[in-house]
Amino acid sequence: MSDIDPYLHNVWYMAGWSSEIGADLLRRVICDKPILLYRLENGLVAALDDRCPHRFAPLSLGERMGDTIRCGYHGLTFDSGGTCIHNPFGGQIPKGASVAHWAVEERHGVAWIWMGDAAAADPDTIPDFSALSRPCGPPLSGYTLMRAGYEYGTDNLMDLSHIEFVHKGSFAGAGVIFAGKHDIVDDGDVLHSNWWMPGVKAPSHTFGIYDPEMITDHWLDMRWNAPASMYLQVGATPPGSAREEGVIVHQAHILTPETASTTHYFWASTRPLDAIIPEADAMVMSLFQTAFDEEDKPMIEAAFANLNGEDFWAGKPLYLGVDAGGMRARRKIEQMKRAQGTPDQPA
Amino acid sequence: MSDIDPYLHNVWYMAGWSSEIGADLLRRVICDKPILLYRLENGLVAALDDRCPHRFAPLSLGERMGDTIRCGYHGLTFDSGGTCIHNPFGGQIPKGASVAHWAVEERHGVAWIWMGDAAAADPDTIPDFSALSRPCGPPLSGYTLMRAGYEYGTDNLMDLSHIEFVHKGSFAGAGVIFAGKHDIVDDGDVLHSNWWMPGVKAPSHTFGIYDPEMITDHWLDMRWNAPASMYLQVGATPPGSAREEGVIVHQAHILTPETASTTHYFWASTRPLDAIIPEADAMVMSLFQTAFDEEDKPMIEAAFANLNGEDFWAGKPLYLGVDAGGMRARRKIEQMKRAQGTPDQPA
Amino acid sequence: MSDIDPYLHNVWYMAGWSSEIGADLLRRVICDKPILLYRLENGLVAALDDRCPHRFAPLSLGERMGDTIRCGYHGLTFDSGGTCIHNPFGGQIPKGASVAHWAVEERHGVAWIWMGDAAAADPDTIPDFSALSRPCGPPLSGYTLMRAGYEYGTDNLMDLSHIEFVHKGSFAGAGVIFAGKHDIVDDGDVLHSNWWMPGVKAPSHTFGIYDPEMITDHWLDMRWNAPASMYLQVGATPPGSAREEGVIVHQAHILTPETASTTHYFWASTRPLDAIIPEADAMVMSLFQTAFDEEDKPMIEAAFANLNGEDFWAGKPLYLGVDAGGMRARRKIEQMKRAQGTPDQPA
Repeated sequence: MSDIDPYLHNVWYMAGWSSEIGADLLRRVICDKPILLYRLENGLVAALDDRCPHRFAPLSLGERMGDTIRCGYHGLTFDSGGTCIHNPFGGQIPKGASVAHWAVEERHGVAWIWMGDAAAADPDTIPDFSALSRPCGPPLSGYTLMRAGYEYGTDNLMDLSHIEFVHKGSFAGAGVIFAGKHDIVDDGDVLHSNWWMPGVKAPSHTFGIYDPEMITDHWLDMRWNAPASMYLQVGATPPGSAREEGVIVHQAHILTPETASTTHYFWASTRPLDAIIPEADAMVMSLFQTAFDEEDKPMIEAAFANLNGEDFWAGKPLYLGVDAGGMRARRKIEQMKRAQGTPDQPA
Repeated sequence: MSDIDPYLHNVWYMAGWSSEIGADLLRRVICDKPILLYRLENGLVAALDDRCPHRFAPLSLGERMGDTIRCGYHGLTFDSGGTCIHNPFGGQIPKGASVAHWAVEERHGVAWIWMGDAAAADPDTIPDFSALSRPCGPPLSGYTLMRAGYEYGTDNLMDLSHIEFVHKGSFAGAGVIFAGKHDIVDDGDVLHSNWWMPGVKAPSHTFGIYDPEMITDHWLDMRWNAPASMYLQVGATPPGSAREEGVIVHQAHILTPETASTTHYFWASTRPLDAIIPEADAMVMSLFQTAFDEEDKPMIEAAFANLNGEDFWAGKPLYLGVDAGGMRARRKIEQMKRAQGTPDQPA
Repeated sequence: MSDIDPYLHNVWYMAGWSSEIGADLLRRVICDKPILLYRLENGLVAALDDRCPHRFAPLSLGERMGDTIRCGYHGLTFDSGGTCIHNPFGGQIPKGASVAHWAVEERHGVAWIWMGDAAAADPDTIPDFSALSRPCGPPLSGYTLMRAGYEYGTDNLMDLSHIEFVHKGSFAGAGVIFAGKHDIVDDGDVLHSNWWMPGVKAPSHTFGIYDPEMITDHWLDMRWNAPASMYLQVGATPPGSAREEGVIVHQAHILTPETASTTHYFWASTRPLDAIIPEADAMVMSLFQTAFDEEDKPMIEAAFANLNGEDFWAGKPLYLGVDAGGMRARRKIEQMKRAQGTPDQPA
């Protein structure tokens, strides 16, 4: 095992959309660990190691009996805390017959999992995505598996200048991003990468609300929490107006490592009018799929593959300033990894 | 190379069903070695390294000329003992121009190969599968490649309690196995894992012979020979009757490592009436395919994959007692491996 | 990194057919390095590292603007020498903002790339394939990716005795090659593997020119230049006549390593009459596809795979004399590798 643990443990990772987790047994690999997710009868989410301690079968191939899970291989049964409560062979339950369980909290449609010691899990440190909760219902959302380390997704999101080049088929607005000002704010555990573009034509998220030729003040405010949970506010107002008078959509771009080279990418967006208009939803979903699946993903995957296993820093990445957000996020994660010590020798 | 050879060498492995090996050249990888199998004109089976010593082409891509094999790349020709008997370039046969040949013996429809020194191969140590030979002809049989180490298949077979959980779509009989008594008998080179279930409803192999509601004494006797050749006797009698008066089928479950993570799984079963009834055969074959290909195989492969390369013991498998057969088989193999020494330093 | 660099650097590799390289951006991995190839407005070929120094995106996913390339991820723009000439973020171009460029020379329809220091690239050392240039136009040519180390392709080509066995469906001529004399000439940097077969029936390349029953003197002269650029002259004359009076086709068989286990195989052949006859071309192309794609390639790939990662010499290849050409080529390359030193410590 290398000196540095490849994953942060005492942080909240997005395990999935709340809407993905129901009565069925859902297997999702997070930080190289197979996790079984399911919703208890009381509505809470249980998360267990998806590996029976007897012969290592995935519990997700087993059967749910009430809130307990019976392994599909030899029938050991576990409660939602991971304790073995039934051994079909004689009734005696052997010592150590349990699987790890993980703390899960749900907030605003997101199920968060704490991939470290459950006792240390503090729900107050869950990144704030309350902006996703709207009266009209859950946001538009999606999921894709990206064949790249999650830090490469963070780089992409913390430097939205790529919009002008990668998203020519979707979001790009004729160089608008270069008309603006870019600020990185380092606020301890939180990073902000904010773009302010006054006096530009109405951006695409105002479609149907502002005239496309109308001049607006436009902003893109990205907030990062470790390891890679990003909130993006996309806004536009008539020039000089207060932000709250403008057209605003709230987005989530949340990355969870599956392995060192694959990433769960969860995205969501509220609607500019806080109303469900099926035609508008369909149009926006199609735009997002183009942008995330057909533009971002192939570029990020090709760049990652181009390193051919080489370490990011060993590749001597050029520093452009505009990428300060991604760079600081990488440095903060490395610092946190050093602080947590090795798997064998916690700091 | 690691200290311990990953494979046992001085043992008999099943190379294939006799019916698979004919005039055509059959390549089969066994213990990471490519082997060429073909049937000689005298009816015996030849087994050679499937790698020409000249430029390493598989001899199985060559041509058979009588009992000799001409390499398909540059024409070196080998007899069935692996000796080069023709060099098309000048007639001179260079020193060392031979490929290893392996001892093969056929018994009761099974071709056995000795993956060690041919001189040490003792046919008397071939596991006894004479029960497969019936007057009505060869047993029902099949083959599947399993993406798991062969020991994981042994675990599965030496602990038939999995029937109740894995085989709900095929063999499972409403908890019958838990009505019984399970014995492990350690007889030196041989292990027995026997289930005795008196007073249970007629098990499925008696279909069409006993009334399904009839009460029977039922047994499942599994015998293991290293490395992973298992014979299973499935029987039922009227309560208290002598076994030979009952309905008995004889099964083979024989595992041969292809590589450290893939296994040739050969299975066979005699018929309860020792008569070929095409409708019954079709029904049983379909049941077996469900049981072995759609129930056992996905579970064993998922459990193996769930270790993600971790060693079995490093995963700290829980001991339930019922799995003593598989555990002892693993221990015996480890002992035999240590006894045979390393590839460079035989013990 | 191992002591010996796996690739020769100060040699010319075939990067592609001139006809493959045009206005579009072509990515080709050579010696494990991704290379971007495109044709400049002045007709020359540019070759750059296909990896932006900023976030490692392939430049081949970017856009061509005149002779410059704009990265498709964040817009850094590079000239054809690899120098960054535009940074969309503020105009300042950071130090080190360049990608390696590689010397390319075109000769007779082949684009050659020097995978070492461009300053040391000497066009006079480009292997002579002038024979491919004919008045009637470019030769028949093709490309295939071979899943084997390039040395295994060299072995194949430097020992044409395989024709009698591998090419039974295409070139083989009833043992004709064994009627001949085989000479290896070691001329320093150049090797010759020549077959001379006097008094044999007219070989297939004379089809439509000589009567198939006509007796001819036939030759196959192969010339090798490091690392694996081979020229083959296929000729036949009336017995005793001067070679230049005969029917001659000139072939290229040029191998370029993509990785240690995959090879770009470029082949070409002139026409026996120096005239384009569409029906003859179609027949010859079909013959070549059979020979190279369906006969050579599966055999070379199977032999390479049969080593299962083992080193060629560790496999103790049998020496037959007929294979002296391939053996010497391997030895020369190893000598050249030692002479060039390691990546960290050039000799």
